Amino acid sequence: MSPITTFSHRFDDATGLTPLGDGVFEGRTDPAYTNMVGPFGGLTAAILLQAVLLDERHLGEPVSLTVNYAGPIADGPFTISVDPVRTNRNTQHWTVTLSQNDVVATTATAVFGTRRATWASTESAPPEAPPASAVEPAEFPELVAWLDNYEMRFVEGSSLELDAGPRPSSTSTLWVRDKPARPLDHLSLTAMSDVFLPRVMLRLGKFVPAGTVTLTVYFHADTDVLAAQGDRPVLATARAGRLGRGFSDQYAELWTDDGELLATGHQLVYFKA
Amino acid sequence: MSPITTFSHRFDDATGLTPLGDGVFEGRTDPAYTNMVGPFGGLTAAILLQAVLLDERHLGEPVSLTVNYAGPIADGPFTISVDPVRTNRNTQHWTVTLSQNDVVATTATAVFGTRRATWASTESAPPEAPPASAVEPAEFPELVAWLDNYEMRFVEGSSLELDAGPRPSSTSTLWVRDKPARPLDHLSLTAMSDVFLPRVMLRLGKFVPAGTVTLTVYFHADTDVLAAQGDRPVLATARAGRLGRGFSDQYAELWTDDGELLATGHQLVYFKA
Repeated sequence: MSPITTFSHRFDDATGLTPLGDGVFEGRTDPAYTNMVGPFGGLTAAILLQAVLLDERHLGEPVSLTVNYAGPIADGPFTISVDPVRTNRNTQHWTVTLSQNDVVATTATAVFGTRRATWASTESAPPEAPPASAVEPAEFPELVAWLDNYEMRFVEGSSLELDAGPRPSSTSTLWVRDKPARPLDHLSLTAMSDVFLPRVMLRLGKFVPAGTVTLTVYFHADTDVLAAQGDRPVLATARAGRLGRGFSDQYAELWTDDGELLATGHQLVYFKA
Repeated sequence: MSPITTFSHRFDDATGLTPLGDGVFEGRTDPAYTNMVGPFGGLTAAILLQAVLLDERHLGEPVSLTVNYAGPIADGPFTISVDPVRTNRNTQHWTVTLSQNDVVATTATAVFGTRRATWASTESAPPEAPPASAVEPAEFPELVAWLDNYEMRFVEGSSLELDAGPRPSSTSTLWVRDKPARPLDHLSLTAMSDVFLPRVMLRLGKFVPAGTVTLTVYFHADTDVLAAQGDRPVLATARAGRLGRGFSDQYAELWTDDGELLATGHQLVYFKA
Protein backbone atom coordinates (compact mmCIF):
# COMPACT_ATOMS: atom_id res chain seq x y z
CA MET A 1 0.00 0.00 0.00
CA SER A 2 1.47 3.30 -1.12
CA PRO A 3 0.75 6.31 1.09
CA ILE A 4 -0.10 8.21 -2.10
CA THR A 5 -3.10 6.03 -2.88
CA THR A 6 -4.45 6.16 0.66
CA PHE A 7 -3.93 9.90 1.13
CA SER A 8 -7.22 11.78 1.12
CA HIS A 9 -6.91 15.47 0.24
CA ARG A 10 -8.82 17.92 2.39
CA PHE A 11 -10.45 19.33 -0.77
CA ASP A 12 -11.87 15.88 -1.51
CA ASP A 13 -13.17 15.60 2.04
CA ALA A 14 -14.73 19.06 1.83
CA THR A 15 -16.44 18.34 -1.51
CA GLY A 16 -17.56 14.87 -0.44
CA LEU A 17 -21.30 14.18 -0.59
CA THR A 18 -23.49 11.28 0.48
CA PRO A 19 -26.10 10.28 -2.13
CA LEU A 20 -29.57 9.87 -0.60
CA GLY A 21 -31.19 8.86 -3.93
CA ASP A 22 -33.50 10.67 -6.37
CA GLY A 23 -30.92 13.38 -7.04
CA VAL A 24 -30.58 14.34 -3.37
CA PHE A 25 -27.21 14.54 -1.63
CA GLU A 26 -26.09 15.38 1.88
CA GLY A 27 -22.96 17.31 2.70
CA ARG A 28 -21.39 19.13 5.61
CA THR A 29 -19.43 22.35 5.94
CA ASP A 30 -15.71 21.87 6.56
CA PRO A 31 -14.10 24.24 9.09
CA ALA A 32 -10.89 24.10 7.01
CA TYR A 33 -12.65 26.09 4.25
CA THR A 34 -14.36 28.74 6.38
CA ASN A 35 -14.41 32.28 5.04
CA MET A 36 -15.42 35.50 6.85
CA VAL A 37 -19.06 34.39 6.88
CA GLY A 38 -19.74 30.73 6.05
CA PRO A 39 -17.70 28.62 3.64
CA PHE A 40 -15.35 29.90 0.89
CA GLY A 41 -17.67 30.57 -2.08
CA GLY A 42 -15.40 28.75 -4.50
CA LEU A 43 -15.75 25.59 -2.43
CA THR A 44 -19.54 25.95 -2.38
CA ALA A 45 -19.51 26.24 -6.19
CA ALA A 46 -17.34 23.11 -6.42
CA ILE A 47 -19.71 21.21 -4.11
CA LEU A 48 -22.72 22.10 -6.28
CA LEU A 49 -20.87 20.88 -9.37
CA GLN A 50 -19.85 17.74 -7.47
CA ALA A 51 -23.52 16.88 -6.88
CA VAL A 52 -24.13 16.78 -10.65
CA LEU A 53 -20.92 14.82 -11.26
CA LEU A 54 -21.98 12.25 -8.65
CA ASP A 55 -25.43 11.88 -10.23
CA GLU A 56 -25.16 8.93 -12.60
CA ARG A 57 -27.58 10.60 -15.02
CA HIS A 58 -25.00 13.22 -16.02
CA LEU A 59 -23.72 13.09 -19.59
CA GLY A 60 -20.47 14.53 -20.92
CA GLU A 61 -18.38 17.10 -19.10
CA PRO A 62 -19.13 20.43 -17.40
CA VAL A 63 -19.07 23.34 -19.82
CA SER A 64 -20.78 26.03 -17.72
CA LEU A 65 -21.78 26.62 -14.11
CA THR A 66 -23.67 29.53 -12.56
CA VAL A 67 -23.94 29.73 -8.77
CA ASN A 68 -26.18 32.22 -6.96
CA TYR A 69 -25.24 32.89 -3.34
CA ALA A 70 -28.77 33.53 -2.08
CA GLY A 71 -28.07 33.40 1.65
CA PRO A 72 -25.49 32.37 4.22
CA ILE A 73 -24.62 28.71 4.81
CA ALA A 74 -24.47 27.86 8.52
CA ASP A 75 -21.88 25.48 9.94
CA GLY A 76 -23.18 21.93 9.76
CA PRO A 77 -25.06 19.68 7.33
CA PHE A 78 -26.78 20.76 4.14
CA THR A 79 -28.88 19.11 1.45
CA ILE A 80 -28.36 19.44 -2.30
CA SER A 81 -30.96 18.44 -4.86
CA VAL A 82 -30.14 18.23 -8.55
CA ASP A 83 -32.52 18.02 -11.50
CA PRO A 84 -31.56 17.21 -15.12
CA VAL A 85 -34.26 19.47 -16.56
CA ARG A 86 -33.36 18.76 -20.17
CA THR A 87 -31.06 16.33 -21.96
CA ASN A 88 -30.23 16.96 -25.62
CA ARG A 89 -27.90 15.14 -27.98
CA ASN A 90 -24.90 17.35 -27.17
CA THR A 91 -25.88 19.31 -24.07
CA GLN A 92 -27.59 18.65 -20.76
CA HIS A 93 -29.09 21.32 -18.51
CA TRP A 94 -29.22 20.98 -14.72
CA THR A 95 -30.72 22.98 -11.88
CA VAL A 96 -29.18 22.61 -8.43
CA THR A 97 -30.41 23.80 -5.02
CA LEU A 98 -28.56 23.80 -1.69
CA SER A 99 -30.80 24.03 1.38
CA GLN A 100 -30.48 23.95 5.14
CA ASN A 101 -33.61 23.15 7.15
CA ASP A 102 -35.66 23.63 3.96
CA VAL A 103 -34.37 27.19 3.52
CA VAL A 104 -32.64 27.76 0.17
CA ALA A 105 -29.08 29.02 0.65
CA THR A 106 -27.65 28.61 -2.86
CA THR A 107 -29.05 27.96 -6.33
CA ALA A 108 -27.17 26.94 -9.43
CA THR A 109 -27.57 25.94 -13.04
CA ALA A 110 -25.05 23.83 -14.91
CA VAL A 111 -24.62 22.91 -18.54
CA PHE A 112 -22.84 19.68 -19.42
CA GLY A 113 -21.77 18.91 -22.94
CA THR A 114 -20.07 16.45 -25.21
CA ARG A 115 -16.57 17.58 -26.07
CA ARG A 116 -15.54 17.08 -29.67
CA ALA A 117 -12.44 18.00 -31.63
CA THR A 118 -13.35 21.18 -33.56
CA TRP A 119 -11.65 24.16 -35.09
CA ALA A 120 -10.03 26.04 -32.22
CA SER A 121 -8.49 29.41 -31.46
CA THR A 122 -7.49 31.26 -28.31
CA GLU A 123 -7.82 35.03 -28.74
CA SER A 124 -7.17 36.01 -25.15
CA ALA A 125 -3.53 36.09 -24.07
CA PRO A 126 -2.18 34.95 -20.73
CA PRO A 127 -0.91 37.70 -18.41
CA GLU A 128 2.81 38.41 -18.26
CA ALA A 129 4.32 36.43 -15.39
CA PRO A 130 7.65 34.89 -14.41
CA PRO A 131 7.58 31.10 -13.89
CA ALA A 132 5.90 29.99 -10.66
CA SER A 133 9.23 28.72 -9.34
CA ALA A 134 10.59 32.28 -9.50
CA VAL A 135 7.86 33.72 -7.27
CA GLU A 136 7.76 33.20 -3.50
CA PRO A 137 4.53 31.76 -2.05
CA ALA A 138 2.58 34.33 -0.02
CA GLU A 139 2.36 33.93 3.71
CA PHE A 140 -1.07 34.96 4.86
CA PRO A 141 -1.98 36.33 8.25
CA GLU A 142 -4.39 34.06 10.12
CA LEU A 143 -7.43 35.83 8.74
CA VAL A 144 -9.66 33.17 7.23
CA ALA A 145 -9.19 29.40 7.29
CA TRP A 146 -9.68 28.61 3.58
CA LEU A 147 -6.55 30.50 2.50
CA ASP A 148 -4.43 27.84 4.21
CA ASN A 149 -5.55 25.36 1.53
CA TYR A 150 -3.97 27.33 -1.31
CA GLU A 151 -0.42 28.07 -2.37
CA MET A 152 -0.52 31.55 -3.89
CA ARG A 153 2.42 33.21 -5.63
CA PHE A 154 1.39 36.78 -6.42
CA VAL A 155 2.77 38.46 -9.52
CA GLU A 156 0.52 41.53 -9.28
CA GLY A 157 -2.13 42.88 -6.90
CA SER A 158 -1.38 40.75 -3.84
CA SER A 159 -4.20 40.28 -1.36
CA LEU A 160 -1.46 40.60 1.26
CA GLU A 161 -1.07 44.27 0.46
CA LEU A 162 -4.66 45.04 1.41
CA ASP A 163 -3.66 47.81 3.77
CA ALA A 164 -1.33 49.45 1.24
CA GLY A 165 -3.91 52.13 0.43
CA PRO A 166 -5.87 52.87 -2.75
CA ARG A 167 -4.68 51.44 -6.08
CA PRO A 168 -5.48 52.59 -9.61
CA SER A 169 -5.98 49.02 -10.91
CA SER A 170 -8.01 46.06 -9.66
CA THR A 171 -5.90 43.49 -11.49
CA SER A 172 -4.45 40.59 -9.53
CA THR A 173 -2.30 37.89 -11.11
CA LEU A 174 -0.97 34.87 -9.26
CA TRP A 175 0.19 31.30 -9.57
CA VAL A 176 -2.19 29.17 -7.53
CA ARG A 177 -2.57 25.53 -6.60
CA ASP A 178 -4.04 23.45 -3.82
CA LYS A 179 -1.89 23.08 -0.71
CA PRO A 180 -0.80 20.30 -0.50
CA ALA A 181 -0.60 19.93 -4.28
CA ARG A 182 -3.51 18.04 -5.85
CA PRO A 183 -4.09 17.12 -9.53
CA LEU A 184 -6.41 19.66 -11.15
CA ASP A 185 -9.98 18.65 -12.00
CA HIS A 186 -13.21 20.51 -12.80
CA LEU A 187 -13.98 20.80 -9.08
CA SER A 188 -10.71 22.43 -8.05
CA LEU A 189 -10.73 24.59 -11.20
CA THR A 190 -14.18 25.86 -10.14
CA ALA A 191 -12.93 26.73 -6.67
CA MET A 192 -9.83 28.46 -8.05
CA SER A 193 -11.98 30.78 -10.17
CA ASP A 194 -13.05 32.40 -6.89
CA VAL A 195 -9.75 32.75 -5.01
CA PHE A 196 -9.60 36.51 -5.52
CA LEU A 197 -10.23 39.10 -2.85
CA PRO A 198 -13.25 41.26 -3.79
CA ARG A 199 -11.81 43.78 -6.26
CA VAL A 200 -13.33 46.73 -4.40
CA MET A 201 -11.10 45.94 -1.39
CA LEU A 202 -8.01 45.85 -3.58
CA ARG A 203 -8.93 49.19 -5.19
CA LEU A 204 -9.70 50.90 -1.88
CA GLY A 205 -6.84 49.24 -0.04
CA LYS A 206 -8.97 48.40 2.95
CA PHE A 207 -11.58 45.99 4.20
CA VAL A 208 -15.17 46.80 3.27
CA PRO A 209 -18.30 44.60 3.53
CA ALA A 210 -18.48 42.65 0.24
CA GLY A 211 -19.60 39.26 -1.02
CA THR A 212 -20.21 37.44 -4.28
CA VAL A 213 -23.90 37.28 -5.23
CA THR A 214 -23.50 35.30 -8.45
CA LEU A 215 -20.60 33.43 -10.09
CA THR A 216 -20.40 31.91 -13.57
CA VAL A 217 -17.60 29.62 -14.75
CA TYR A 218 -17.07 28.67 -18.40
CA PHE A 219 -14.91 25.57 -18.73
CA HIS A 220 -12.63 25.38 -21.74
CA ALA A 221 -10.56 22.46 -20.46
CA ASP A 222 -11.76 18.90 -20.83
CA THR A 223 -10.52 16.04 -18.67
CA ASP A 224 -7.57 15.37 -21.01
CA VAL A 225 -6.31 18.95 -20.64
CA LEU A 226 -6.77 18.78 -16.87
CA ALA A 227 -4.90 15.47 -16.66
CA ALA A 228 -2.02 16.97 -18.64
CA GLN A 229 -1.89 19.92 -16.22
CA GLY A 230 -1.60 17.61 -13.21
CA ASP A 231 -0.76 19.46 -10.01
CA ARG A 232 1.33 22.22 -11.55
CA PRO A 233 0.39 25.79 -10.53
CA VAL A 234 -2.35 27.56 -12.52
CA LEU A 235 -1.83 31.14 -13.69
CA ALA A 236 -4.87 33.08 -12.47
CA THR A 237 -5.75 36.68 -13.22
CA ALA A 238 -8.78 38.82 -12.35
CA ARG A 239 -9.95 42.39 -12.74
CA ALA A 240 -13.12 44.45 -12.37
CA GLY A 241 -14.68 46.24 -15.33
CA ARG A 242 -17.01 48.48 -13.36
CA LEU A 243 -17.60 49.06 -9.64
CA GLY A 244 -20.48 51.26 -8.45
CA ARG A 245 -24.05 51.56 -7.17
CA GLY A 246 -23.43 48.80 -4.62
CA PHE A 247 -22.11 46.15 -7.02
CA SER A 248 -18.87 45.28 -8.79
CA ASP A 249 -18.22 42.83 -11.59
CA GLN A 250 -15.13 40.63 -11.82
CA TYR A 251 -13.65 38.83 -14.80
CA ALA A 252 -11.10 36.08 -14.23
CA GLU A 253 -9.01 33.79 -16.40
CA LEU A 254 -7.23 30.58 -15.42
CA TRP A 255 -4.31 29.50 -17.61
CA THR A 256 -1.93 26.54 -17.77
CA ASP A 257 1.78 27.25 -17.59
CA ASP A 258 2.01 26.57 -21.33
CA GLY A 259 -0.63 29.10 -22.37
CA GLU A 260 -3.85 27.07 -22.53
CA LEU A 261 -6.98 28.85 -21.26
CA LEU A 262 -8.57 26.43 -18.78
CA ALA A 263 -11.60 28.44 -17.69
CA THR A 264 -13.00 31.93 -17.28
CA GLY A 265 -14.81 33.17 -14.20
CA HIS A 266 -17.42 35.93 -14.13
CA GLN A 267 -18.97 37.28 -10.97
CA LEU A 268 -21.02 40.08 -9.51
CA VAL A 269 -20.06 41.23 -6.01
CA TYR A 270 -22.18 43.18 -3.56
CA PHE A 271 -20.30 45.84 -1.60
CA LYS A 272 -20.72 48.76 0.79
CA ALA A 273 -18.22 51.60 0.42
CA MET B 1 -54.32 62.28 -28.27
CA SER B 2 -50.76 62.25 -29.52
CA PRO B 3 -49.77 59.34 -31.78
CA ILE B 4 -46.62 58.99 -29.66
CA THR B 5 -48.54 58.00 -26.54
CA THR B 6 -50.71 55.48 -28.35
CA PHE B 7 -47.90 53.88 -30.32
CA SER B 8 -47.04 50.40 -29.09
CA HIS B 9 -43.51 49.28 -29.95
CA ARG B 10 -43.12 45.80 -31.38
CA PHE B 11 -40.56 45.02 -28.65
CA ASP B 12 -43.22 45.75 -26.02
CA ASP B 13 -45.69 43.50 -27.82
CA ALA B 14 -43.10 40.73 -28.10
CA THR B 15 -42.17 40.92 -24.40
CA GLY B 16 -45.78 41.23 -23.26
CA LEU B 17 -46.99 38.60 -20.82
CA THR B 18 -50.38 37.77 -19.32
CA PRO B 19 -50.27 37.11 -15.55
CA LEU B 20 -52.14 33.95 -14.60
CA GLY B 21 -51.45 34.33 -10.85
CA ASP B 22 -49.08 32.54 -8.43
CA GLY B 23 -46.00 33.64 -10.38
CA VAL B 24 -47.21 32.11 -13.64
CA PHE B 25 -47.34 34.07 -16.90
CA GLU B 26 -48.39 33.26 -20.42
CA GLY B 27 -46.66 34.61 -23.51
CA ARG B 28 -46.50 33.91 -27.20
CA THR B 29 -43.69 33.90 -29.75
CA ASP B 30 -43.69 36.89 -32.10
CA PRO B 31 -42.86 36.14 -35.77
CA ALA B 32 -41.16 39.56 -35.97
CA TYR B 33 -38.37 38.25 -33.67
CA THR B 34 -37.79 34.87 -35.30
CA ASN B 35 -34.18 33.68 -35.59
CA MET B 36 -32.81 30.71 -37.57
CA VAL B 37 -34.47 28.30 -35.15
CA GLY B 38 -37.09 29.74 -32.80
CA PRO B 39 -37.02 33.26 -31.34
CA PHE B 40 -33.98 35.57 -31.10
CA GLY B 41 -32.26 34.52 -27.85
CA GLY B 42 -31.91 38.11 -26.65
CA LEU B 43 -35.68 38.49 -26.80
CA THR B 44 -36.18 35.26 -24.85
CA ALA B 45 -33.82 36.57 -22.17
CA ALA B 46 -35.78 39.84 -22.03
CA ILE B 47 -39.08 37.96 -21.70
CA LEU B 48 -37.75 35.92 -18.75
CA LEU B 49 -36.63 39.13 -17.03
CA GLN B 50 -40.02 40.70 -17.84
CA ALA B 51 -41.78 37.91 -15.92
CA VAL B 52 -39.89 38.88 -12.75
CA LEU B 53 -40.47 42.61 -13.34
CA LEU B 54 -44.21 41.94 -13.73
CA ASP B 55 -44.33 39.93 -10.51
CA GLU B 56 -45.32 42.39 -7.81
CA ARG B 57 -43.13 40.58 -5.28
CA HIS B 58 -39.93 41.82 -6.95
CA LEU B 59 -37.78 44.25 -4.97
CA GLY B 60 -35.23 46.69 -6.32
CA GLU B 61 -33.76 46.51 -9.81
CA PRO B 62 -32.18 43.74 -11.90
CA VAL B 63 -28.47 43.34 -11.23
CA SER B 64 -27.82 39.94 -12.83
CA LEU B 65 -29.57 37.51 -15.16
CA THR B 66 -28.46 34.07 -16.35
CA VAL B 67 -30.47 32.34 -19.07
CA ASN B 68 -29.94 28.73 -20.12
CA TYR B 69 -31.23 27.82 -23.57
CA ALA B 70 -32.13 24.22 -22.78
CA GLY B 71 -34.16 23.44 -25.87
CA PRO B 72 -35.90 25.04 -28.85
CA ILE B 73 -39.00 27.21 -28.40
CA ALA B 74 -41.71 26.32 -30.92
CA ASP B 75 -43.90 28.99 -32.52
CA GLY B 76 -46.91 29.65 -30.34
CA PRO B 77 -47.76 30.09 -26.66
CA PHE B 78 -45.45 29.40 -23.73
CA THR B 79 -45.71 29.47 -19.96
CA ILE B 80 -43.25 31.12 -17.59
CA SER B 81 -43.15 30.45 -13.86
CA VAL B 82 -41.10 32.59 -11.50
CA ASP B 83 -40.11 31.86 -7.90
CA PRO B 84 -38.56 34.36 -5.45
CA VAL B 85 -36.47 31.69 -3.73
CA ARG B 86 -34.85 34.09 -1.28
CA THR B 87 -35.34 37.72 -0.33
CA ASN B 88 -32.63 39.47 1.70
CA ARG B 89 -32.29 43.06 2.82
CA ASN B 90 -30.36 44.16 -0.28
CA THR B 91 -30.72 41.30 -2.75
CA GLN B 92 -33.44 39.00 -4.01
CA HIS B 93 -32.87 35.71 -5.84
CA TRP B 94 -35.28 34.35 -8.47
CA THR B 95 -35.54 31.17 -10.48
CA VAL B 96 -37.46 31.28 -13.75
CA THR B 97 -38.65 28.48 -16.05
CA LEU B 98 -40.14 28.73 -19.54
CA SER B 99 -42.10 25.68 -20.66
CA GLN B 100 -44.20 24.56 -23.60
CA ASN B 101 -46.60 21.65 -23.04
CA ASP B 102 -44.86 20.98 -19.71
CA VAL B 103 -41.48 20.53 -21.42
CA VAL B 104 -38.80 22.92 -20.11
CA ALA B 105 -37.33 25.01 -22.94
CA THR B 106 -35.42 27.67 -20.97
CA THR B 107 -34.30 28.13 -17.38
CA ALA B 108 -33.01 31.29 -15.75
CA THR B 109 -31.88 32.77 -12.48
CA ALA B 110 -32.03 36.47 -11.71
CA VAL B 111 -30.66 38.59 -8.91
CA PHE B 112 -32.41 41.84 -8.04
CA GLY B 113 -30.84 44.38 -5.74
CA THR B 114 -31.22 47.72 -4.07
CA ARG B 115 -29.13 50.36 -5.82
CA ARG B 116 -27.29 52.76 -3.53
CA ALA B 117 -24.85 55.57 -4.15
CA THR B 118 -21.39 54.09 -3.41
CA TRP B 119 -17.80 54.65 -4.32
CA ALA B 120 -17.56 54.01 -8.06
CA SER B 121 -14.96 53.42 -10.75
CA THR B 122 -15.01 52.17 -14.34
CA GLU B 123 -11.81 50.33 -15.25
CA SER B 124 -12.89 49.07 -18.64
CA ALA B 125 -12.68 51.57 -21.50
CA PRO B 126 -15.19 51.93 -24.31
CA PRO B 127 -14.01 50.82 -27.76
CA GLU B 128 -12.77 53.44 -30.23
CA ALA B 129 -15.65 54.50 -32.45
CA PRO B 130 -16.77 57.51 -34.47
CA PRO B 131 -20.13 59.00 -33.40
CA ALA B 132 -23.18 56.97 -34.44
CA SER B 133 -24.25 59.74 -36.81
CA ALA B 134 -21.02 59.25 -38.76
CA VAL B 135 -21.66 55.55 -39.43
CA GLU B 136 -24.20 54.28 -41.96
CA PRO B 137 -26.82 51.82 -40.71
CA ALA B 138 -26.26 48.33 -42.07
CA GLU B 139 -28.73 46.93 -44.56
CA PHE B 140 -29.23 43.27 -43.88
CA PRO B 141 -30.18 40.62 -46.40
CA GLU B 142 -33.54 39.01 -45.60
CA LEU B 143 -31.96 36.27 -43.55
CA VAL B 144 -33.73 36.28 -40.19
CA ALA B 145 -36.71 38.38 -39.11
CA TRP B 146 -35.38 39.74 -35.78
CA LEU B 147 -32.61 41.78 -37.41
CA ASP B 148 -35.28 44.10 -38.87
CA ASN B 149 -36.01 45.33 -35.35
CA TYR B 150 -32.52 46.75 -34.86
CA GLU B 151 -30.62 49.65 -36.32
CA MET B 152 -26.97 48.55 -36.43
CA ARG B 153 -24.07 50.78 -37.41
CA PHE B 154 -20.97 48.62 -37.58
CA VAL B 155 -17.62 50.12 -36.67
CA GLU B 156 -15.73 46.80 -36.76
CA GLY B 157 -16.51 43.15 -37.53
CA SER B 158 -19.77 43.61 -39.41
CA SER B 159 -22.10 40.62 -39.50
CA LEU B 160 -22.76 41.69 -43.10
CA GLU B 161 -19.27 40.60 -44.09
CA LEU B 162 -19.91 37.02 -43.09
CA ASP B 163 -18.78 35.68 -46.45
CA ALA B 164 -15.60 37.73 -46.46
CA GLY B 165 -13.52 34.72 -45.44
CA PRO B 166 -11.55 33.98 -42.26
CA ARG B 167 -10.59 36.85 -39.92
CA PRO B 168 -7.86 36.99 -37.27
CA SER B 169 -10.12 38.71 -34.70
CA SER B 170 -13.60 37.97 -33.40
CA THR B 171 -14.23 41.54 -32.26
CA SER B 172 -17.36 43.32 -33.45
CA THR B 173 -18.21 46.89 -32.47
CA LEU B 174 -21.40 48.66 -33.46
CA TRP B 175 -23.87 51.36 -32.53
CA VAL B 176 -27.20 49.66 -31.91
CA ARG B 177 -30.73 50.68 -31.04
CA ASP B 178 -34.25 49.43 -31.52
CA LYS B 179 -35.86 50.17 -34.89
CA PRO B 180 -37.98 52.25 -34.62
CA ALA B 181 -36.12 53.99 -31.78
CA ARG B 182 -37.35 53.10 -28.28
CA PRO B 183 -36.17 54.43 -24.88
CA LEU B 184 -33.69 52.01 -23.33
CA ASP B 185 -34.76 49.90 -20.33
CA HIS B 186 -33.47 46.76 -18.64
CA LEU B 187 -35.45 44.61 -21.07
CA SER B 188 -34.06 46.11 -24.27
CA LEU B 189 -30.59 46.25 -22.73
CA THR B 190 -30.84 42.50 -22.06
CA ALA B 191 -31.82 41.82 -25.66
CA MET B 192 -29.03 44.04 -27.00
CA SER B 193 -26.42 42.03 -25.09
CA ASP B 194 -27.16 39.19 -27.54
CA VAL B 195 -27.27 40.98 -30.92
CA PHE B 196 -23.92 39.57 -32.01
CA LEU B 197 -23.46 36.87 -34.61
CA PRO B 198 -21.81 33.79 -33.04
CA ARG B 199 -18.11 34.70 -32.94
CA VAL B 200 -17.09 31.43 -34.59
CA MET B 201 -18.94 32.46 -37.76
CA LEU B 202 -17.18 35.81 -37.82
CA ARG B 203 -13.79 34.13 -37.37
CA LEU B 204 -14.39 31.48 -40.03
CA GLY B 205 -16.18 33.87 -42.37
CA LYS B 206 -18.96 31.41 -43.09
CA PHE B 207 -22.13 29.96 -41.66
CA VAL B 208 -21.67 27.04 -39.26
CA PRO B 209 -24.22 25.45 -36.90
CA ALA B 210 -24.00 27.44 -33.63
CA GLY B 211 -26.26 28.55 -30.80
CA THR B 212 -26.02 30.13 -27.36
CA VAL B 213 -26.36 27.58 -24.55
CA THR B 214 -26.08 30.03 -21.63
CA LEU B 215 -26.09 33.83 -21.34
CA THR B 216 -25.32 36.00 -18.31
CA VAL B 217 -25.94 39.75 -18.14
CA TYR B 218 -24.56 41.97 -15.37
CA PHE B 219 -26.43 45.25 -15.17
CA HIS B 220 -24.45 48.30 -14.15
CA ALA B 221 -27.10 50.85 -15.16
CA ASP B 222 -29.98 51.66 -12.88
CA THR B 223 -33.26 53.17 -14.12
CA ASP B 224 -31.87 56.73 -13.78
CA VAL B 225 -28.96 55.96 -16.09
CA LEU B 226 -31.28 54.25 -18.57
CA ALA B 227 -33.68 57.21 -18.53
CA ALA B 228 -30.78 59.57 -19.22
CA GLN B 229 -29.74 57.42 -22.19
CA GLY B 230 -33.22 57.59 -23.72
CA ASP B 231 -33.35 56.22 -27.26
CA ARG B 232 -29.83 57.21 -28.31
CA PRO B 233 -27.74 54.42 -29.87
CA VAL B 234 -25.75 52.14 -27.54
CA LEU B 235 -22.12 51.33 -28.29
CA ALA B 236 -21.84 47.54 -28.25
CA THR B 237 -18.71 45.45 -28.54
CA ALA B 238 -18.09 41.71 -28.28
CA ARG B 239 -15.25 39.25 -28.67
CA ALA B 240 -14.42 35.63 -27.95
CA GLY B 241 -11.67 34.64 -25.54
CA ARG B 242 -11.42 30.99 -26.56
CA LEU B 243 -13.16 28.86 -29.18
CA GLY B 244 -12.63 25.10 -29.29
CA ARG B 245 -13.82 21.60 -28.37
CA GLY B 246 -17.34 22.43 -29.57
CA PHE B 247 -17.87 25.60 -27.53
CA SER B 248 -16.92 29.29 -27.69
CA ASP B 249 -17.21 31.98 -25.08
CA GLN B 250 -18.22 35.56 -25.83
CA TYR B 251 -17.69 38.68 -23.75
CA ALA B 252 -19.72 41.80 -24.57
CA GLU B 253 -19.93 45.35 -23.27
CA LEU B 254 -22.70 47.90 -23.79
CA TRP B 255 -21.75 51.58 -23.40
CA THR B 256 -23.57 54.91 -23.51
CA ASP B 257 -22.33 57.50 -25.97
CA ASP B 258 -20.75 59.38 -23.06
CA GLY B 259 -18.68 56.48 -21.76
CA GLU B 260 -20.86 54.88 -19.09
CA LEU B 261 -20.78 51.07 -18.96
CA LEU B 262 -24.45 49.98 -19.00
CA ALA B 263 -24.03 46.21 -18.88
CA THR B 264 -21.73 43.31 -19.70
CA GLY B 265 -22.83 40.13 -21.44
CA HIS B 266 -21.18 36.74 -21.06
CA GLN B 267 -22.15 33.68 -23.03
CA LEU B 268 -21.14 30.21 -24.04
CA VAL B 269 -21.98 29.13 -27.58
CA TYR B 270 -22.20 25.61 -28.96
CA PHE B 271 -20.77 25.16 -32.44
CA LYS B 272 -19.84 22.59 -35.07
CA ALA B 273 -16.85 23.43 -37.26
